[in-house]
Amino acid sequence: MGVNKQLRLAKRPVGEPTSDDFELTEEEVPAPGDGEALVKVQQISLDPAMRGWMNDAPSYIPPVGLGDVMRAGTAGVVVESNSDKLAPGDHVVGMLGVQEHGVAGADALTKVDTNLAPLATFLGALGMPGLTAYFGLTEVGDLKEGDVVVISGAAGAVGSVAGQVAKAKGASKVVGIAGGPDKCAWIVDELGFDAAIDYKSESVGKRLHELCPDGINVYFDNVGGDILDAALANLAWGARVVICGAISQYNAEGGMQGPKNYMMLLVKRARMQGFLVFDYVKQYGAAVQEMAGWLQSGQLKAREEIEQGSVDDFLDTLLKLFRGENMGKLVLQIAET
Amino acid sequence: MGVNKQLRLAKRPVGEPTSDDFELTEEEVPAPGDGEALVKVQQISLDPAMRGWMNDAPSYIPPVGLGDVMRAGTAGVVVESNSDKLAPGDHVVGMLGVQEHGVAGADALTKVDTNLAPLATFLGALGMPGLTAYFGLTEVGDLKEGDVVVISGAAGAVGSVAGQVAKAKGASKVVGIAGGPDKCAWIVDELGFDAAIDYKSESVGKRLHELCPDGINVYFDNVGGDILDAALANLAWGARVVICGAISQYNAEGGMQGPKNYMMLLVKRARMQGFLVFDYVKQYGAAVQEMAGWLQSGQLKAREEIEQGSVDDFLDTLLKLFRGENMGKLVLQIAET
Repeated sequence: MGVNKQLRLAKRPVGEPTSDDFELTEEEVPAPGDGEALVKVQQISLDPAMRGWMNDAPSYIPPVGLGDVMRAGTAGVVVESNSDKLAPGDHVVGMLGVQEHGVAGADALTKVDTNLAPLATFLGALGMPGLTAYFGLTEVGDLKEGDVVVISGAAGAVGSVAGQVAKAKGASKVVGIAGGPDKCAWIVDELGFDAAIDYKSESVGKRLHELCPDGINVYFDNVGGDILDAALANLAWGARVVICGAISQYNAEGGMQGPKNYMMLLVKRARMQGFLVFDYVKQYGAAVQEMAGWLQSGQLKAREEIEQGSVDDFLDTLLKLFRGENMGKLVLQIAET
Repeated sequence: MGVNKQLRLAKRPVGEPTSDDFELTEEEVPAPGDGEALVKVQQISLDPAMRGWMNDAPSYIPPVGLGDVMRAGTAGVVVESNSDKLAPGDHVVGMLGVQEHGVAGADALTKVDTNLAPLATFLGALGMPGLTAYFGLTEVGDLKEGDVVVISGAAGAVGSVAGQVAKAKGASKVVGIAGGPDKCAWIVDELGFDAAIDYKSESVGKRLHELCPDGINVYFDNVGGDILDAALANLAWGARVVICGAISQYNAEGGMQGPKNYMMLLVKRARMQGFLVFDYVKQYGAAVQEMAGWLQSGQLKAREEIEQGSVDDFLDTLLKLFRGENMGKLVLQIAET
């Protein structure tokens, strides 16, 4: 059957992960069991949450075990199937991990239609990041027409979609916070955000105050840290703060920085609420359909940054994410699609 | 008309307030205008929020102006009235400030029935602290029968009522966090809390984990700081964190300590929400009626700690609050009731 290269978690990283924390292994390509399919992994999703999965701490899913293949969302093609639901040649997404081949039950794989969008888009705007943006805004943020919406990590896979969903759903103003002029230009000129704040060169608090003089109705947070505090200081009465991520804090060795302005929740009678996209699994179908419609009409623009490489390149690609070097969805392609 | 002694804010305190921050003044007792009443202040309420009112920072009400009489809730007796709604001899509560006499429009004064409860109770369990506890739990905390409820500052004016409201409303378990064995004994033996954690001698996180093995459904926070973090680490799925106060942080000179465990809101799909009792003003009547019923049936126990003194004793009495030296509602009595 050939060789399956895999990347396994060897140690629990302290701070930023290094190559010492991983181990490259080779096994025989596995055979699918009853009801399962064998998938050739073509693309690996890079997600900020991966850093948390490496920690031995209580969270929403168990940590990746030491010695286990690193957990990852993947897109690929079915090469062998023991299920009626999937046939060789089908494109699928699923959590197969950082390896060249993976086996999973048909129910754990989602067949995708690559006529609708390129495969990588199903790891981005039409995948978990896009759904995270969609449900975070509509369900957790309780987005209403006319709301002033602010999004941090606005050039990332989730943030870039969140801003566009907000516009599509009738926000009166959408402000994105991102790092550097290229990202800021992209989210305004290409994605239709009303304004961008470059946190690397501007005072986020001052600019939020200028851009949102009546306060922020929905703040969608992907970054945590000082930017979360600046947003808290600029909330409107009854604001909703959506806690989606805290990428600025995931590699912090001294522990997380808590939002020192959280008492603004009292001053402004606001709420801060966390969520995970998995909570809305029953509504995925309808959301993907709505977003695919926007994609086809041009109302939603998806962008993927696809790095070519092999499973060996996982760590370097992941670090690009934490260094903020990507615009849109970052993907590692390990086999031609 | 005689002399009216007043305590005015002279400077903005840095950290813990000192006597230099206040100035004692004497004026003539004022005459009530049309529709107003002159009240002889008998009792002055001491509230943690007072510290925030002294700061020149945006909040839910403007700061006390420099040179102004220090803002305070008060209870007293009408001595002269130009309103049909009030007559000399009526007992009233209102925000008359730290002074011996005050004038206010009849609509800004609430007539209270001292046959129902002693006057000071209308500054405590049947006043703002009691209503804060009531609406914080029922409206913001969305308390449901069977919930596990944890309350910090549990021996304070708000916390001590909150625990009893939670029991009355069907919580399956109510745990209070307080400082020292006397307070812990009081809330369990007298007030009917199911358990107490002494934060001065116990690990709050460890004890919460033991006492609430399935997690906390409603956490009512009066203190902030490390105790808030310990509670966040022990939330149940879908928990509600009610932000009522942060007394541990109000005198902090280095700025507020943010809750570093706030990402547990994501892990547990929980929300953290702030409020002010004034948001529920239309429901005050019904709530006071319900609580007065509990008070008469013995289901709710009110306790006031009444310090005898004059307006000069305001600061010393306020500092007792921040040092956690009171059980129940702390009141400064400046004239016989």
